[in-house]
Amino acid sequence: MIYLNCAATSLVRPPCVVDAVATAMTALGSSSRGTAEGDLAAARTALTCRMAVADLLGSSHPDRVIFTANATQALNTAIFGLVRAHDRVVTTVTEHNSVLRPLNVLARDADVEIEHVGLDVAHVLDYRALERAVTPATRVVVCSHASNLTGDVVDIERVAAIAHAAGALLVVDAAQTAGNIPVDMERMGIDVLCFTGHKALLGPTGTGGLIAAPGIDIEPLLQGGTGVHSADPFQPEAWPEHLEAGTLNGHGLAGLEAAVRYLDERGVEAVAAYEERLRSRFARAARAIPGVVPYGAGDAAFGHTPVVALNLVGMTSSQLADVLASRYGIAARAGLHCAPLMHRALGTIETGSVRFSFGQFTTEAEVDVALAALAEISAEEVRA
Amino acid sequence: MIYLNCAATSLVRPPCVVDAVATAMTALGSSSRGTAEGDLAAARTALTCRMAVADLLGSSHPDRVIFTANATQALNTAIFGLVRAHDRVVTTVTEHNSVLRPLNVLARDADVEIEHVGLDVAHVLDYRALERAVTPATRVVVCSHASNLTGDVVDIERVAAIAHAAGALLVVDAAQTAGNIPVDMERMGIDVLCFTGHKALLGPTGTGGLIAAPGIDIEPLLQGGTGVHSADPFQPEAWPEHLEAGTLNGHGLAGLEAAVRYLDERGVEAVAAYEERLRSRFARAARAIPGVVPYGAGDAAFGHTPVVALNLVGMTSSQLADVLASRYGIAARAGLHCAPLMHRALGTIETGSVRFSFGQFTTEAEVDVALAALAEISAEEVRA
Repeated sequence: MIYLNCAATSLVRPPCVVDAVATAMTALGSSSRGTAEGDLAAARTALTCRMAVADLLGSSHPDRVIFTANATQALNTAIFGLVRAHDRVVTTVTEHNSVLRPLNVLARDADVEIEHVGLDVAHVLDYRALERAVTPATRVVVCSHASNLTGDVVDIERVAAIAHAAGALLVVDAAQTAGNIPVDMERMGIDVLCFTGHKALLGPTGTGGLIAAPGIDIEPLLQGGTGVHSADPFQPEAWPEHLEAGTLNGHGLAGLEAAVRYLDERGVEAVAAYEERLRSRFARAARAIPGVVPYGAGDAAFGHTPVVALNLVGMTSSQLADVLASRYGIAARAGLHCAPLMHRALGTIETGSVRFSFGQFTTEAEVDVALAALAEISAEEVRA
Repeated sequence: MIYLNCAATSLVRPPCVVDAVATAMTALGSSSRGTAEGDLAAARTALTCRMAVADLLGSSHPDRVIFTANATQALNTAIFGLVRAHDRVVTTVTEHNSVLRPLNVLARDADVEIEHVGLDVAHVLDYRALERAVTPATRVVVCSHASNLTGDVVDIERVAAIAHAAGALLVVDAAQTAGNIPVDMERMGIDVLCFTGHKALLGPTGTGGLIAAPGIDIEPLLQGGTGVHSADPFQPEAWPEHLEAGTLNGHGLAGLEAAVRYLDERGVEAVAAYEERLRSRFARAARAIPGVVPYGAGDAAFGHTPVVALNLVGMTSSQLADVLASRYGIAARAGLHCAPLMHRALGTIETGSVRFSFGQFTTEAEVDVALAALAEISAEEVRA
């Protein structure tokens, strides 16, 4: 199988990540639930993982790193924990359902006003419309660092400047960027950064989290055991316990830490450069194949994650993905990619599209096999 | 280290569980996020894990198994998803903070009336008081299957009869029982069963969930990507997607399935019988040590998980646990165990207590070492 669905999850993980999880599974007790060797080892793992993640993503406050099961839980925590009834929130059409749906619930149940900023004629996020939308009444701006469909990167520093000029907080969904391109939340002006562990960070599933700048209060989404301040009727005020109820995924965090250290050693800049070579090679050649319709802003984008979305004229996205999988053993993803407004903006809400997404373990040879397959299918379609 | 903190997490896991996770970490894509080999393998893993868990816990509806990161998230999902503003909820003083704190939030924010049923003079759950408390106005009864502090098991069939006679739903926290003693939700009359994967089920951290009887609607706590029905503005109505937003912990679920199959082969009845021998051996001998104060209903209880809580006169629980850890290498847990109302009911809210908890890999020899250590510390305290 040629796995070109890395934007969904990393199929390949470095052996050190697998080893770290396997070791943890027979060595870790429960963090904050005891003071003996195994339990302290669990507490240490959580702590050192917080430090590694904060370091990689540009936060100097490891105690502001909160672990969750995935980016979705992190985004739900941030959105439901920051937005209050009757607030105004500005977001974009590029968002994933993990942003859109929580906001829809707030609009339905708490009279929250949501504005979705669209794309300009070049299919770039419309920053001028964003400027107009972010009024002083806006509590929060929620923005993807990159579209999970087109891979187009958003100029987050510009979004942060717009949000902060109006006194709004900026929540960024970095599910598609963390590990693929450099993310530096303090330099970029991000107030709350949400990430997942299992995509480009190369960690295990069941890991992810958020990092909040100091001074930002987030109401807990989950209430439960914290191992400390157990007589309090509610979650303790101190972070990270404030937002971490229940036993942490210590096994997963051991793997996430190993993955982040692996990534750090290789260097995210080097990974980004390699992946961009793959992406541009694929994008350029695919555009030249008869019948291929690419999506996104192309060279007008602020940057790219290693993702290319396209359709082949005359086929639905499911048909194309099925042929790629069954005849060529190529895994690419069809459908709506949990990004319905982006598909509406691109005119593909009925057909979906096929997303090819690469990772640092994808080879140039695999990219070329996929291109050859596309060309072959295109030739058949043109004949038909 | 002699690990007697199994009620917090299982330190030991069968090799087949570790192997299953390690294999999954290089073979699984993302469930419902593609149709190629790796992604289908992830979908299959989730499905077969649902079937194994449903089978072990007495549900004939695998599609009603919802996976979460832990029991806390499952309990939050059940409680916030079932209880509405101005409802009445009956619960007990034996509950963990993962039940108490969500209910406190509902009382604070949604005018929900909460009654905590206490213990009788024998320190058994006061079933008569429960009968009086569960009025026809009660929407939900939330009850632990066993106290995480004393290990005393609750007669859940009796609680179910009381709840159902008044038209209330029964939510059961099986974090302490699943894997330790037989749990059969359909036979017992449980409407929503919440469980964790990493304790007696012997699975990885980051796994757990709930099983809801058919026809019970739970409002989603999390909103996000489901991989299907992506154009819907809210979570789809179909289960399990309704309550599962974001990428599942496929690696963890592969381990949980292996653990459940391991447990099934050994037989939960056999595990329960072995663990009860350990518990009663320890409880009986500990009671005879001068200065030991045991907690719980003892022989009056409906049954026991392999847990014994006690204090040694003249020492705080932290002091005793520290001596056990530092001098004898024995891991037991001091403090409040996230169960403040139970400690209040037992008169130990100031001192806490030391909890010794055993598992199927605990040996009789380890139990005897702990007993000898307790006797030695007691003798020193008496001399002092």
